[in-house]
Amino acid sequence: MREAMGNAFVPGAVALDPAEAAMIERRGRVLGPAYRLQYERPLHIVRGEGVHLTDANGVRYLDAYNNVPSVGHAHPRVVEALTRQAATLNTHTRYLHENILAYAERLLATMPDALAHVMFTCTGSEANDLAGRIAQAHTGGTGFIVTRYAYHGVTEVVSRLSPCLGEGVQQGPHVRLVAPPASGVADVGARFAEGVRRAIADLEAHGIRPAALLVDTVFTSDGNYVDPAGFLGPAVEAIREAGGLFIADEVQPGFGRTGAHFWGFGRHGIVPDMITMGKPMGNGHPMGAVAGRREPIASFANQVRYFNTFGGNPVSCAVGLAVLDVITDEGLMANAADVGAHLHAGLDALSGRCPTLGERRVAGLACAVDVVDAEGRPDPVAATRIVNGLRDRQVLISISGIEHATLKIRPPLVFQRAHADQLLEALEGVLRA
Amino acid sequence: MREAMGNAFVPGAVALDPAEAAMIERRGRVLGPAYRLQYERPLHIVRGEGVHLTDANGVRYLDAYNNVPSVGHAHPRVVEALTRQAATLNTHTRYLHENILAYAERLLATMPDALAHVMFTCTGSEANDLAGRIAQAHTGGTGFIVTRYAYHGVTEVVSRLSPCLGEGVQQGPHVRLVAPPASGVADVGARFAEGVRRAIADLEAHGIRPAALLVDTVFTSDGNYVDPAGFLGPAVEAIREAGGLFIADEVQPGFGRTGAHFWGFGRHGIVPDMITMGKPMGNGHPMGAVAGRREPIASFANQVRYFNTFGGNPVSCAVGLAVLDVITDEGLMANAADVGAHLHAGLDALSGRCPTLGERRVAGLACAVDVVDAEGRPDPVAATRIVNGLRDRQVLISISGIEHATLKIRPPLVFQRAHADQLLEALEGVLRA
Repeated sequence: MREAMGNAFVPGAVALDPAEAAMIERRGRVLGPAYRLQYERPLHIVRGEGVHLTDANGVRYLDAYNNVPSVGHAHPRVVEALTRQAATLNTHTRYLHENILAYAERLLATMPDALAHVMFTCTGSEANDLAGRIAQAHTGGTGFIVTRYAYHGVTEVVSRLSPCLGEGVQQGPHVRLVAPPASGVADVGARFAEGVRRAIADLEAHGIRPAALLVDTVFTSDGNYVDPAGFLGPAVEAIREAGGLFIADEVQPGFGRTGAHFWGFGRHGIVPDMITMGKPMGNGHPMGAVAGRREPIASFANQVRYFNTFGGNPVSCAVGLAVLDVITDEGLMANAADVGAHLHAGLDALSGRCPTLGERRVAGLACAVDVVDAEGRPDPVAATRIVNGLRDRQVLISISGIEHATLKIRPPLVFQRAHADQLLEALEGVLRA
Repeated sequence: MREAMGNAFVPGAVALDPAEAAMIERRGRVLGPAYRLQYERPLHIVRGEGVHLTDANGVRYLDAYNNVPSVGHAHPRVVEALTRQAATLNTHTRYLHENILAYAERLLATMPDALAHVMFTCTGSEANDLAGRIAQAHTGGTGFIVTRYAYHGVTEVVSRLSPCLGEGVQQGPHVRLVAPPASGVADVGARFAEGVRRAIADLEAHGIRPAALLVDTVFTSDGNYVDPAGFLGPAVEAIREAGGLFIADEVQPGFGRTGAHFWGFGRHGIVPDMITMGKPMGNGHPMGAVAGRREPIASFANQVRYFNTFGGNPVSCAVGLAVLDVITDEGLMANAADVGAHLHAGLDALSGRCPTLGERRVAGLACAVDVVDAEGRPDPVAATRIVNGLRDRQVLISISGIEHATLKIRPPLVFQRAHADQLLEALEGVLRA
């Protein structure tokens, strides 16, 4: 098997603390061989607060990696909402409950009016899987187009739409891969759309009607392709002309991460046919959803009902409402925009002094930096060294991109300018070491 | 679409309270048309405690339906574990954490030694989807065999294995349906295995190698087929002879429901190749898992890694540990056996007085009663009348089976003899009315 994960722990590569080695041994025994840890020396975290994680030895790390606890680790308002509702009632969507209505209304209010309905799941994987079912029911097509190193989840169907999982998962006959939007060229949108049109033509040449173009609207796993704003428009047009739908995977860009917009698609001035969400939706509580236009959901409902045992339960909805409240009350979108711009400027300046840092691609607190060698080629070895060097300086980031040579920086949205400065300083230290 | 759900609310059939009618209207607007409510007059539940649910008007219902809040609604020990860990740390399985190791060890200790590893998901659907991927990776086969009215979940792949969702979901070329185990005949096991062998032969005749036989070990959705204990053995042998695996879907029977065994397969003296779990695992907190033998998981891991963002997080594992503690400390398996036997005896007696009640199939607190007409044929209209009549007497049950004529009774495991008596009395009242 080609190891397809950047920043994976490699057993035996580095000497470990005996306590952690013992945990890793237990882990292998009970969880088996399919799981992966991160970093050369895996972390044993026991506590979290805001942007900080603390390990079993009391060492405190600056978390510039985790995009799930988006309003900050263990946020008291979220914990309180979770506790209060769990102590009162946790049932399901076959009974009426005010929380699901209030939450669905609040969530839909963050979207263009055309996105009329929301259906709840427990994970982003389930959301993408459901969106795929809806797209097939509505279009009659079965073909899907995703980017070359996309990640959309782990159900059987969605793992086929997640080439970043590596060659062990076959895409199968109904999936086509396209290059992510190139950056630094004049016609990003036209080029990306051209790739989509070629994929559509190839599906059709094989007798497969396209169901949807599915993209993470900041292309997180491909390496965070965000500029120029608006570049998605022509590709959306292309898939619609072919009778397919456009599904915006907002699992990573959603809930304010890009700063200027609540959803990543906002940056592109488009309105998707469906959007899927997950990760930060419950700040770590397992929840996901699909929102969509009336027509595709009606086509689906005309064929089959939908019930997700835990999806949309009163506790999850209470948590979701608390997360929305915190994003608003603490001004986290404005903060993401401000701190993201500050970090971006700092990375630009640092790259001037350290040529190992190549292109920077930043939208709010979705941030990526290519690591390059002296000839400007992707340098995965240096990227791994940087990520582990930062870990040793108590700063956590990871790696993305098909070359495993892009620094993935996507902290909780409560990250402050001082935290960005700490990250930049540690990064410069690692680069000079 | 053929409406495939028993006990579904039908808009317009009955006059509703204006407050609930308004909620139903809001619900349709925001959730769209794929959702279903239960009962002629849907419930608006606001509070839960133990085996009781209370609606917005303060009316208290005896819950003999919900198998998710298995240790009782809003159990304080579970809520406390949830709160404490959520206030401390919620991360993921790419860092080390004691909770996941402790929980995996405790969970595996409830199973035969051959089930060596456990992999965490957020739902039973995700667990069955993952087990399907593992079975395919290990066997090289792609064929699945399930029972005629099975329910295994809602991902695209698993919905094809869930014929109870109705004709709107096509099983596709790789799925074969078999009749559930007949009851009241001499050779239940041989007959069921014969159906499985025919399905294997038909798959092979179409060039499809079988990957797995997947069954709910109490056949909940088919109508709770539980006797005689041991009948699953020959079918398990049949699938293994054909190179396929046996997957026990323990989402509904697991965690002590059948009283005599922690897992439903225990009743049959077999050891599955994999087991899947969900619903009661977190007493309503979204969690699921696959446990399996070493070899299939090794085959899977050899092709692909597995990561589920929320699956196995420290909060979910803390909740899972609390649920296991409560099952043990409150003696809930013994209670399920005792109260289940008491309920069974009461239903037997009642059926002597009320010929509308046909065959009873009971294992612990997994209980089903066929509703029949004067000629002994399944009577879905009477079943619906009974379920709604019980709702009007503040007792909640629902309907299962392909004929929509089987009473589905599966209360939280804290159900007491007095609750069973209340249910029996209300049932007799409805039958006499």
